[in-house]
Amino acid sequence: MAQHGTLGVAVIGTGKMGADHVRRLNEVTSGARVAAVVDVDAERVKRIADGIEGCSAHTDPSAAMAADGVDAVLIASPGPAHEAALLTAFEYDLPVLCEKPLTPGSVSALRVLEAEQKLGHRRVQVGFMRRYDTEYAKLKSLLATGQLGRPLMLHNRHRNVATPPGFTSAMLINDSVVHEMDITRWLLEQEITAVTVLKPTPSGNAPEGLQDPQFVLFETDGGAVVDVEINVNCGFGYQVQAEVVCERGTARIGDGHALVTNMAGRWGGTIAQDFVERFEDAYDRQMQAWVDATRRGEVTGPSAWDGYATAAVCEAGVRAQTEGGRVEVELIERPAFYS
Amino acid sequence: MAQHGTLGVAVIGTGKMGADHVRRLNEVTSGARVAAVVDVDAERVKRIADGIEGCSAHTDPSAAMAADGVDAVLIASPGPAHEAALLTAFEYDLPVLCEKPLTPGSVSALRVLEAEQKLGHRRVQVGFMRRYDTEYAKLKSLLATGQLGRPLMLHNRHRNVATPPGFTSAMLINDSVVHEMDITRWLLEQEITAVTVLKPTPSGNAPEGLQDPQFVLFETDGGAVVDVEINVNCGFGYQVQAEVVCERGTARIGDGHALVTNMAGRWGGTIAQDFVERFEDAYDRQMQAWVDATRRGEVTGPSAWDGYATAAVCEAGVRAQTEGGRVEVELIERPAFYS
Amino acid sequence: MAQHGTLGVAVIGTGKMGADHVRRLNEVTSGARVAAVVDVDAERVKRIADGIEGCSAHTDPSAAMAADGVDAVLIASPGPAHEAALLTAFEYDLPVLCEKPLTPGSVSALRVLEAEQKLGHRRVQVGFMRRYDTEYAKLKSLLATGQLGRPLMLHNRHRNVATPPGFTSAMLINDSVVHEMDITRWLLEQEITAVTVLKPTPSGNAPEGLQDPQFVLFETDGGAVVDVEINVNCGFGYQVQAEVVCERGTARIGDGHALVTNMAGRWGGTIAQDFVERFEDAYDRQMQAWVDATRRGEVTGPSAWDGYATAAVCEAGVRAQTEGGRVEVELIERPAFYS
Amino acid sequence: MAQHGTLGVAVIGTGKMGADHVRRLNEVTSGARVAAVVDVDAERVKRIADGIEGCSAHTDPSAAMAADGVDAVLIASPGPAHEAALLTAFEYDLPVLCEKPLTPGSVSALRVLEAEQKLGHRRVQVGFMRRYDTEYAKLKSLLATGQLGRPLMLHNRHRNVATPPGFTSAMLINDSVVHEMDITRWLLEQEITAVTVLKPTPSGNAPEGLQDPQFVLFETDGGAVVDVEINVNCGFGYQVQAEVVCERGTARIGDGHALVTNMAGRWGGTIAQDFVERFEDAYDRQMQAWVDATRRGEVTGPSAWDGYATAAVCEAGVRAQTEGGRVEVELIERPAFYS
Repeated sequence: MAQHGTLGVAVIGTGKMGADHVRRLNEVTSGARVAAVVDVDAERVKRIADGIEGCSAHTDPSAAMAADGVDAVLIASPGPAHEAALLTAFEYDLPVLCEKPLTPGSVSALRVLEAEQKLGHRRVQVGFMRRYDTEYAKLKSLLATGQLGRPLMLHNRHRNVATPPGFTSAMLINDSVVHEMDITRWLLEQEITAVTVLKPTPSGNAPEGLQDPQFVLFETDGGAVVDVEINVNCGFGYQVQAEVVCERGTARIGDGHALVTNMAGRWGGTIAQDFVERFEDAYDRQMQAWVDATRRGEVTGPSAWDGYATAAVCEAGVRAQTEGGRVEVELIERPAFYS
Repeated sequence: MAQHGTLGVAVIGTGKMGADHVRRLNEVTSGARVAAVVDVDAERVKRIADGIEGCSAHTDPSAAMAADGVDAVLIASPGPAHEAALLTAFEYDLPVLCEKPLTPGSVSALRVLEAEQKLGHRRVQVGFMRRYDTEYAKLKSLLATGQLGRPLMLHNRHRNVATPPGFTSAMLINDSVVHEMDITRWLLEQEITAVTVLKPTPSGNAPEGLQDPQFVLFETDGGAVVDVEINVNCGFGYQVQAEVVCERGTARIGDGHALVTNMAGRWGGTIAQDFVERFEDAYDRQMQAWVDATRRGEVTGPSAWDGYATAAVCEAGVRAQTEGGRVEVELIERPAFYS
Repeated sequence: MAQHGTLGVAVIGTGKMGADHVRRLNEVTSGARVAAVVDVDAERVKRIADGIEGCSAHTDPSAAMAADGVDAVLIASPGPAHEAALLTAFEYDLPVLCEKPLTPGSVSALRVLEAEQKLGHRRVQVGFMRRYDTEYAKLKSLLATGQLGRPLMLHNRHRNVATPPGFTSAMLINDSVVHEMDITRWLLEQEITAVTVLKPTPSGNAPEGLQDPQFVLFETDGGAVVDVEINVNCGFGYQVQAEVVCERGTARIGDGHALVTNMAGRWGGTIAQDFVERFEDAYDRQMQAWVDATRRGEVTGPSAWDGYATAAVCEAGVRAQTEGGRVEVELIERPAFYS
Repeated sequence: MAQHGTLGVAVIGTGKMGADHVRRLNEVTSGARVAAVVDVDAERVKRIADGIEGCSAHTDPSAAMAADGVDAVLIASPGPAHEAALLTAFEYDLPVLCEKPLTPGSVSALRVLEAEQKLGHRRVQVGFMRRYDTEYAKLKSLLATGQLGRPLMLHNRHRNVATPPGFTSAMLINDSVVHEMDITRWLLEQEITAVTVLKPTPSGNAPEGLQDPQFVLFETDGGAVVDVEINVNCGFGYQVQAEVVCERGTARIGDGHALVTNMAGRWGGTIAQDFVERFEDAYDRQMQAWVDATRRGEVTGPSAWDGYATAAVCEAGVRAQTEGGRVEVELIERPAFYS
């Protein structure tokens, strides 16, 4: 491992997704750095590597994996290139985060499974990122408590504003509904055993030739029925909703970002029990903002003037509290220094 | 600056708040590391420093600020110690994140202001972290658009489950309502000019001698009226809500974590327009989870088996879509390796 | 017609539903009165008729329809008795409100259709009362505006706490889902062309032998796909929800009694534009409560004391408004007369 | 009393409010009829009376109260005329529903109180109709259960789109905030002891000379603090909200028409427990619609065709349920008679 135990990552593919992962590893993730980048476009990859201290540029994934300081691999190249990159990573015995799909079909996916098993230990994480969404995570936790009983049905809504040119009906399954497949398997801990697709008359907003929306049904080996409204030219927004219907209640996410349950005669959600739960993210963002500004040599955020002004208001507040009535706040004139 | 430009931070005070900031800097914040820790308890501070590579332990803030690799200071000691620590940091000309309060009164705060001005450039950020809360930030952004017109009133609710032993009425202003003072000044960009406090008959849940809840009113130099329900033994949860009433509508946060507006005959909120907006946090968490697990030598998250199983379901889905009817999914038996 | 144009109604069947309709006609509906009641139980029907001025008791529907003052018929007898009662009403050429089902099967229903057509004018209204629900009515109105475009899908949830003894899987279709059949046809103005039923593993709360919940799919001659979660032992409450998915947005009812739309980047609902819209029901209830109490010789509701006390507070309010500060309210001691 | 015990009401004043009450008594309220109408405009009042069977027209309230068939009085004349009308009603010993205000001031109100006490029994109900609003009624019921403990604070929002010409700051108290005065007294069962009014800088939407919005504070003899945002040119809608803050939780109405509580770590509301609770209003509306249409000689609502079509879909549904797969629905061609 690198200094201070920082994880050096080789990023394979620097398209839209890969470039965003490079930014994330550099600026958001704690304890990681980009040690190597790979792209078929040699100029592009050099330009990216040049902006990152200690990062090498490559056009060959294997060379990148062998490069100095590389501890792990992130695969963000197009799907058809995944199998080769995975097998190479296994040769170097490196941990891999592989963007979905693992590979573009089940036969090639099976070859990857076999290779990983031969390696003798697990090395691959697939990029099904919905499992890391706070709402889905809360839903999963709630199911795990058993309060709601066994899941019977799962209703899903998956809506996109509009599709890019060239989007096909098959992509609607492979690129969009694939997320609900993963969520179904993960939430219910059951395998999907059958699929049915119903097709309403297409929306006037669907491009010529695209059957959109569709209504997809899954049956599972645990006896659950799952439905997915896939509606990728809905026009109004990007919306992902899920409601699990269990024996003793239902739980729904995706409306205004809170988990809402129906249980025992009541609908509603939980209230945080302390400021840590409510404001943990704010503390994290504050620290990152301060560190980022300080590294740029800047000062942002609440100033000493803000500290002074609130101290003066507190003093008036305590007087109003103890003496009653209305207490005026006295402030010095604000120095230009703090304007 | 340290290697890779990482910011070395001296953390002054390792009580509950300080220890949490040490954890945050080490495990959450990108681009920072704890370079020195200070506490009056020499054993405690040594124990903390020993667990962090390249971190020195001190009982004297000045020594910590002079220590190797220190680029910035985080003050999390008790309020009465803040002034001395701030003045020392100014001597070393180090950037400071100072937990609230800046100092415990307006007179001492003024001394800090004067010292910072003498330094000739701003160095202090005060830890009013609500400004970094996603909901408050959205509220601020919405006000900045001018869509709602000028703010006229601001209604606040600040509720805690219960107070710890020794909590006084003055703390209710200085430790709790102080947040609404900052939020009022920041959201409205106005100074508070007068304070009034109304006291209902105390709740039966309030400890003997604590006047709780209270209803606090601010007037501002921009002509706004602000009210705060401070209710720190409410029993049911920690709840922070704010509604800004403007000329053409109102905007409210704190109900189930979404910004809700009343405008032009409609109530409601916005819908994300793409997956980045909706799932950005999930991508960040996925990366952090993968990096953390990998650094621990573990593999967690969706496995290659998950990649294979969804590929097989996709194949069934595309067949169901093109051929109609119900298509069964064929899976190999799940290898024990992936169980 | 009866005096003051009041509609005299013969109620056929005085079981739970019929008895409730008798009460409704007597105490809630304006402009109607129960002129005759029919039941196979002669004692029961006599007891009911005796409590209503000008109401005759019968065991034979035909005699009731011929009775003095009968202008219309309400059929609330068991389903198998509907056909005969309807045909008799046609002989008397009386308007009929017939509880659902019209008749228990499509063949007998066809005979009723033919008889009504022979009569030459429409006489029958079927008791699909969901069409009169405020929320469904708003949904229908919204669709009629065309704002959302053409309906593509309709998602329904139909949940009951528990089923009574003897409830069968067929009743789940005939007594429960029948409402969604009517709503589908009415909301979409399309006929249903095919039905599919999926059955998850039954809930542990379902009585032995009842397959509950089920997931029912309709296809329509307008190309819409409709799904119904029918879940009649859900345990937590009675819940009826519907979401219409259209080309440009969706609209949902059944969550806390308001219509919520997704449209043009925003979710939310409408805000009333005046007090008539918001409080029309309150005015209606106030009048009914006053009339009912007055007819009983009682005085309820806000008293003259309430009128006096608010007048005194208004006077203090106007002084506080014009003079500033806090104004005390002066009240005489409350007379025992008003306690 | 009139035939069938119908209550004959003399309506004093046929302006906007009075005319609406005439319509309500005639078309909505069960068991009442308008027996006499009074207005200073003799032509107007004659025109109204002519449209109602058995209703006499008057310009003098006393004559109306003496008219044939009058059992009770509804006063909807301007406030300054209320005292005389009330005293006259006492002479005839008639029950009165008096629109708010009882009289325009506390001194005149006291005279009414004295007169009613001399009469020896209560005769007056004041038209504070918010007490009959479903949401306020639920709030009151919830407080009565004691679940939430003692009320400590009550937050109110009272928003109007815009004020009519001539609306004054005093009317803002006397015509608008008067509702919150009544609600405070009724909900809390406490008298108001002091009033304070705070005035933000007026909204740009407020007409010249009107101080709008205002923030009004009540203190009560039970130690509660009550605040009212009165905001009568808010532009976006008519919105009435109330949140009672109690010792163990809070309860709020006015957001999308449901009661929402904060209690024991959860926010949310109740779910109906049966169809009567959920659809009672729909049954009432269905009956009124059928009676109204029948009295007009019309047939509206679901037809026999609707009864037939749902019977056919039920048959398909039961087959789909028992045989599996997709079952097509067979319908005869729709007769023109039912189109």
